[in-house]
Amino acid sequence: MTDGGAVRRMLLTNIGELVTNDPADGRDGGPLGIVHDAAVLVDEGRIVWVGPAAHAPSHADEARHEREDRLDGDEHRTAWDADVEVVDLGGRAVIPGFVDSHTHLVFGGDRAEEFAARMAGRAYSAGGIRSTVAATRRATDDELRARLLGFVGELRRQGTTTFEIKTGYGLSVADEARLARLAAEVTDEVTFLGAHVVPFEFREPEGPGADAYVDVVIGEMLEACAPHSRWVDAFCERGAFTEAQSRRVLEAGRAAGLGVRVHGNQLGEGPGVRLAVELDAASVDHCTYLTDADVAALAGSSTVATLLPGVEFSTRQPYPDARRLIDAGVTVALASDCNPGSSFTSSMPFCVAVAVRDMGMTPAEAVWASTAGGAAALRRTDVGALRPGSRADLAVLDAPSHVHLAYRPGVPLVAETWKDGVRVA
Amino acid sequence: MTDGGAVRRMLLTNIGELVTNDPADGRDGGPLGIVHDAAVLVDEGRIVWVGPAAHAPSHADEARHEREDRLDGDEHRTAWDADVEVVDLGGRAVIPGFVDSHTHLVFGGDRAEEFAARMAGRAYSAGGIRSTVAATRRATDDELRARLLGFVGELRRQGTTTFEIKTGYGLSVADEARLARLAAEVTDEVTFLGAHVVPFEFREPEGPGADAYVDVVIGEMLEACAPHSRWVDAFCERGAFTEAQSRRVLEAGRAAGLGVRVHGNQLGEGPGVRLAVELDAASVDHCTYLTDADVAALAGSSTVATLLPGVEFSTRQPYPDARRLIDAGVTVALASDCNPGSSFTSSMPFCVAVAVRDMGMTPAEAVWASTAGGAAALRRTDVGALRPGSRADLAVLDAPSHVHLAYRPGVPLVAETWKDGVRVA
Ligand SMILES: [Zn+2]
Ligand SMILES: [Zn+2]
Repeated sequence: MTDGGAVRRMLLTNIGELVTNDPADGRDGGPLGIVHDAAVLVDEGRIVWVGPAAHAPSHADEARHEREDRLDGDEHRTAWDADVEVVDLGGRAVIPGFVDSHTHLVFGGDRAEEFAARMAGRAYSAGGIRSTVAATRRATDDELRARLLGFVGELRRQGTTTFEIKTGYGLSVADEARLARLAAEVTDEVTFLGAHVVPFEFREPEGPGADAYVDVVIGEMLEACAPHSRWVDAFCERGAFTEAQSRRVLEAGRAAGLGVRVHGNQLGEGPGVRLAVELDAASVDHCTYLTDADVAALAGSSTVATLLPGVEFSTRQPYPDARRLIDAGVTVALASDCNPGSSFTSSMPFCVAVAVRDMGMTPAEAVWASTAGGAAALRRTDVGALRPGSRADLAVLDAPSHVHLAYRPGVPLVAETWKDGVRVA
Repeated sequence: MTDGGAVRRMLLTNIGELVTNDPADGRDGGPLGIVHDAAVLVDEGRIVWVGPAAHAPSHADEARHEREDRLDGDEHRTAWDADVEVVDLGGRAVIPGFVDSHTHLVFGGDRAEEFAARMAGRAYSAGGIRSTVAATRRATDDELRARLLGFVGELRRQGTTTFEIKTGYGLSVADEARLARLAAEVTDEVTFLGAHVVPFEFREPEGPGADAYVDVVIGEMLEACAPHSRWVDAFCERGAFTEAQSRRVLEAGRAAGLGVRVHGNQLGEGPGVRLAVELDAASVDHCTYLTDADVAALAGSSTVATLLPGVEFSTRQPYPDARRLIDAGVTVALASDCNPGSSFTSSMPFCVAVAVRDMGMTPAEAVWASTAGGAAALRRTDVGALRPGSRADLAVLDAPSHVHLAYRPGVPLVAETWKDGVRVA
């Protein structure tokens, strides 16, 4: 039963408040399935049992007793003793690791000066996203990789255990493929976003135009990126891609075996949500401006509405109305949209706090949306919850309750992050 | 020159961006006095030199060269070699440690349920501040001290090197004195806030009323608290203390040798600011609702307006208008107001980000207000800046610029915190 003596079973115990996201476990009747004074038994990185610590499986208790015996000088060992490590979490709260279903983490440079100018109410002439594309194309693989690994560490320190990464700052066949390949080094959730914006060299009147760029996106570029990607995405918005152009990209991606996601309805009402629902996208992201028909379409679909509070915070735009969506029965996720232009936060706790303050969510709804909601937006059943069969991906909070993520905004409350049963931060 | 061989001189170098808050140092003409590619020489916890690293005093260079010689096997040592430690900060940004001039960190219990109910739009009946007073009175010294030390660690991890703490959850002679004594164990900046609210047992019709409570505050309670305190404060607001009651408290405190601070103009226009200016208070805090006369009075005074963005964030109130104050020439500080009721954040970076997003401050103004502004609000000249004579209290950011504190909201960017030349986080 043992693995050459290595610990493979682990009992995390003395958890003051455990958020399971499994309604079957809930004493409170809420979506979080909260268990107080809880324990979690982990076997080879997967959860095999969850419940009150007092009812933890007896073999785990045996392990603990054996360990105490040894402290008394008894050298007798059992298989369990070598096999089960008991970790006392000191009464703190544990939540599923955050699932950040929307980031743009492979890029060069930053845009701090543009941000400072915007906050001071000044125009900034240095070209926005174009400057990031230029810096990204200039950067070597090693430079992009070092930056990316820095962000991965940052995510882990903040409790994020699953994250999606989009391409979209390359915008040439070679550069998009490079970004997809680099992203795939750190996550399985890579999204091909060649249709982020029309690159400079394609823009009219000098360039051949957006349709010609879409031809490249759905041809050579898709072919080069699909092997590294799980998803295809398009920015369906005035100033980016039309409904018809977005549809071409998404249908081509789907034909290549990729799942569909959409950026839509960020800057105004538009076709993004309608198109996402029609194509059974896993998620449509932003959803800041919605018609009643959009809300109804989402409610009748299996498409998640992913809200990105960091964007509205960092651009001083009005926030999306999460309350309206939840009350209509739409599944809502929260994600960071971490990118150097419109939202350079990588903090899911920050997103939770802002969603509670400004988007009408309760702390419980926001914590659910940033864990189980993110998992739904990635159509993942192995993450986002802590129930038998789930990966042992979790965050230990320096707090007695998940509520503190909103109640103590900005405070780094994630004390430990565990992924597949291994502590990674 | 050496101190028994102990390192007492230290050269912090390779600082990509140094915020000195010393306009004499600024290349950019802004309030931050920024020096790029900078170094700071520290002697016994105080700064003795600041400037471009290339111009660092020659004895520091000598020390570095000696060290390199030693690596080559040369055993020769000089006095400088033993004396100066060179610390390479890897091109990161360094700012003065945050000065949080307004906290309420000695208390028992928390009010997470009240917060969650408020965010869900539900009334909450469990008594607000009264529940904190009850929990604080019940707690032992050791319990309060353990909690307080936890907060001190949290502050340091977030770059705060000077912080004020108010009493005000005891509201009896013995409990206020206890809180002042405990606060004085961790900071020199203790504020006696017996006049926080009228305690339950004094309230009419059963109790003898607010004036009778003020008699106690300015009598026995002040006598018991003054030895542990530097400041006196009163909550001059409808529902707390009237102008006349506040004046009695503040004048009595001043007569006992304490400096004056005021809580005012949080919930509506009122006499707080006017009273603070009249009494030459170091600071008037909240300043959410101000008349033009209030702004003019502040501009013509040496009283700092301390804004507390965590309060408006956590209570969904409108934010104070920092722009209006700065444009009128008022000195503005930012502070956390960390307390379990209206603002349970201890994060000065969070306050900076919200002040930029919602209060009209530029990133530079917000960083100044949370460092030099806080020092002005405490009438301190030894902290809040990094210039010769300042304490070596500073935060090293995992970022190239101070702008990132607003540009990357919620991300824990403070990598190291140094106090009096010693790394404390
Ligand atoms: Zn995006
Ligand atoms: Zn206060």
